[in-house]
Amino acid sequence: MTKKDKEFRPKARVPRGFRDRLGEELIAEKAMLERITDVYASYGFDPLETPAFEYTDALGKFLPDVDRPNQGVFSLQDDDEQWMSLRYDLTAPLARFVAEHFDGLPKPFRRYAVGRVWRNEKPGPGRYREFTQCDADSVGAPAPYADTEIAMMFADAVEAAGVPRGDYVIRISDRKLMNGLLDVAGLSGEEQAGQRLVTLRAMDKLDRLGTDGVRQLLGEGRKDDSGDFTDGAKLSGDQADIVMAFMAATKGTNEDTIRALKDIIGASDAGQAGLADMAAMAETLSALGYDETRVLLDLSIVRGLEYYTGPVFEADLTFEVADEKGRPVRFGSVGGGGRYDDLVKRFKGQEVPAVGCSVGVSRLLSALQTREGALAKASGPVIVTVFDKARMADYQLMAAELRAAGIRAEVYLGGSNFGKQMKYADRRDAPVAIIQGEDERANGEIQLKDLILGATLSKEIEDNKAWREDQPAQVSAPREKLVEAVREMLARH
Amino acid sequence: MTKKDKEFRPKARVPRGFRDRLGEELIAEKAMLERITDVYASYGFDPLETPAFEYTDALGKFLPDVDRPNQGVFSLQDDDEQWMSLRYDLTAPLARFVAEHFDGLPKPFRRYAVGRVWRNEKPGPGRYREFTQCDADSVGAPAPYADTEIAMMFADAVEAAGVPRGDYVIRISDRKLMNGLLDVAGLSGEEQAGQRLVTLRAMDKLDRLGTDGVRQLLGEGRKDDSGDFTDGAKLSGDQADIVMAFMAATKGTNEDTIRALKDIIGASDAGQAGLADMAAMAETLSALGYDETRVLLDLSIVRGLEYYTGPVFEADLTFEVADEKGRPVRFGSVGGGGRYDDLVKRFKGQEVPAVGCSVGVSRLLSALQTREGALAKASGPVIVTVFDKARMADYQLMAAELRAAGIRAEVYLGGSNFGKQMKYADRRDAPVAIIQGEDERANGEIQLKDLILGATLSKEIEDNKAWREDQPAQVSAPREKLVEAVREMLARH
Repeated sequence: MTKKDKEFRPKARVPRGFRDRLGEELIAEKAMLERITDVYASYGFDPLETPAFEYTDALGKFLPDVDRPNQGVFSLQDDDEQWMSLRYDLTAPLARFVAEHFDGLPKPFRRYAVGRVWRNEKPGPGRYREFTQCDADSVGAPAPYADTEIAMMFADAVEAAGVPRGDYVIRISDRKLMNGLLDVAGLSGEEQAGQRLVTLRAMDKLDRLGTDGVRQLLGEGRKDDSGDFTDGAKLSGDQADIVMAFMAATKGTNEDTIRALKDIIGASDAGQAGLADMAAMAETLSALGYDETRVLLDLSIVRGLEYYTGPVFEADLTFEVADEKGRPVRFGSVGGGGRYDDLVKRFKGQEVPAVGCSVGVSRLLSALQTREGALAKASGPVIVTVFDKARMADYQLMAAELRAAGIRAEVYLGGSNFGKQMKYADRRDAPVAIIQGEDERANGEIQLKDLILGATLSKEIEDNKAWREDQPAQVSAPREKLVEAVREMLARH
Repeated sequence: MTKKDKEFRPKARVPRGFRDRLGEELIAEKAMLERITDVYASYGFDPLETPAFEYTDALGKFLPDVDRPNQGVFSLQDDDEQWMSLRYDLTAPLARFVAEHFDGLPKPFRRYAVGRVWRNEKPGPGRYREFTQCDADSVGAPAPYADTEIAMMFADAVEAAGVPRGDYVIRISDRKLMNGLLDVAGLSGEEQAGQRLVTLRAMDKLDRLGTDGVRQLLGEGRKDDSGDFTDGAKLSGDQADIVMAFMAATKGTNEDTIRALKDIIGASDAGQAGLADMAAMAETLSALGYDETRVLLDLSIVRGLEYYTGPVFEADLTFEVADEKGRPVRFGSVGGGGRYDDLVKRFKGQEVPAVGCSVGVSRLLSALQTREGALAKASGPVIVTVFDKARMADYQLMAAELRAAGIRAEVYLGGSNFGKQMKYADRRDAPVAIIQGEDERANGEIQLKDLILGATLSKEIEDNKAWREDQPAQVSAPREKLVEAVREMLARH
């Protein structure tokens, strides 16, 4: 290393669009992932882990929810000139895995996966380029039975994650219903590809723009509040009427929705097929207690234009939170999924039925956080304070005894200044500090400082003197009673 | 998409040096990580997660155990022209995090981290470019107390991971002892940099080459079995004698080793400082029951030539396994660590003491697997077989009842062929299959097939006929007793 190298000081900063995460958030996320994957496992799904990298050609152009295929991924060239990309989801790697090991797998093949994925997108507030997905997929099982099961499991997973029944709904639609609509609206020809795309995008905005806004986007176009004009699908009035009727066919019960749909798209073969699948799903769902408050047929759900081939799902949180201006808004989507029978076909030539769901763990966590306030604090360690470094073995022995009894504990290793140790204990949310100076040692004693009580007392300095005398913030105990004394103090709170 | 695009069929293959992992291995690894991080948490460490990417300049040239700095990482240029690299370990990102948030952190700052890291190296058998590390580090605590604690925690972590006491040893040395040796051997000047490096590398090979081989490498050089010649450090006979004496100073007890070392390196200031630290560590370790069978001062440990500044650790498994030729060999290293007081200095200018340990989870897992045979099988799901697709809701209800009772269960979704269903159940290690054809349904009954017993019976066809009659491989039960009947059958095994 030259002098010059030694003097270069890089600025310590996290890369753009990435973030560090600490303590409570990680502990809460881990617990949530555990509960979700327990649900997946209970349905017979087994874990699979694939690498961060895939060959770019194997990853394909299936980046969901994005209009620019093959953009939005992080790619680099390997030593042997082959291009590799970091996975942007867990589904494309599953398709590669299944194609690679097709003959050797039990079929249907059920797997769940938890992992980070990366999107090379413009970062923004709350919009990160790395996040965690938690997926489950059935490969090799045709519609509608596997789809029904995924819908139930998706609902169970959201509940297991901590969302009470009534506060979420799994919305279902079906790409075949959509195709039926496009048939009857005269939008299924090759020359209507452009109009079709604009129509589907417009439908996807029902939630945000309402029926008037969507209607404008189906016609000539729409000017938004800022004055920007979005070109419309330029449908005729009749065509737009059919599309609007389709969306309005979402009724209170899945049976009513199916009945209403029959009148609109029953004339199309694709529509008929979609209706038959939906009817079978609705029957099983209702028999198993997954009624419309949990799994609702909702025709405004579009999701992943080029990606899905059958049923599509969206997990929505229905409770309201305040938006950045303090107005109440529904929290909205915390995950999605659907059937994608073409994904393995890219490799194999042959169609392989597949369906899955994906929970957006970070969004779900932040929903629960927004609603319930701060996450539960992790319990801080008991701090064994240090008065004399030469006695470090004594202090370490105290901490080791506490750990052996299942109590988090550490010796303060930043010196022997008492004030600094108390400040540190406070920063770490330590419940108890152990003190043994020369006098205590000579008497075979320790002092225990109740830091939770101490914090309360300093706030309520005027309060109930008698109670304070009953609950002294600092007590002594014989050294050999360390564990019992700490347990007793912890039990106060 | 053009016709040509549609016809392109990428080959489904995992990228070179990467791998997919399934079922048992993942479940075993997760459980092991859980037990190790529980140990870290019990010592007061909190979790931290940093992104996969760091800016390349922030990552620095501290790639451990590699002679080519700045090679060996996966890098790419971001939209704004800045170079980013995937992290090659969890320590460099920790240094960046600490430097970025220095003033706001409680100090000492204790964190643990579990995550994937990437090395852009030539892949080989068992040598992957992506793997999981599980680290704990104390930042801001000077030697030797934090180092002592890390050594104890490292031993506890290896035990928690499943290695019985007596089957591992944490070997410790100290970079300052090494510097003392270099002083007294006349190798600490700037002009001896090359000789120094070759000497340290030679010492690192004691385990593999024995004393004769190392002695040759300290002198002119060594010809290996294949005839390749490795140039030596070209030390004088006296110099080499000192180095050999240093390595031979490792005794049965840490106290004896320290005494023996005093005679060799006591004349050097660095050596004195190292000896004082080691004596303090040995005292606390021995007071807490971490004797030489668990934490052993071993002067043959070198590790990370440019990286560490004080104590260094290596976790070694001492039991023997068969090598690729069936010869017994010690399994060896499953992790390491040490003190690195310079890592944060790169950003801050000021030295920040830091020490940590890292468990190589994959190697540890494969050690236990090699020793104890196959990993514990994950329990397969109960399979509810399908006779009539129109009755799917009935079958799903059975599976749902079992799941609600805490039993893994799934409905077979690949059709209604009975032979295929039994083959699938076998592939999934299903313990029980549930059967309800038309007759059973009419009688309000189900059949339960004991697949574990079935597998045993088909192997031991000649065995104990009476026992077989007591334990019929297939029983009926009333439909409403499904859960009880499955529980009873599972309890047989």
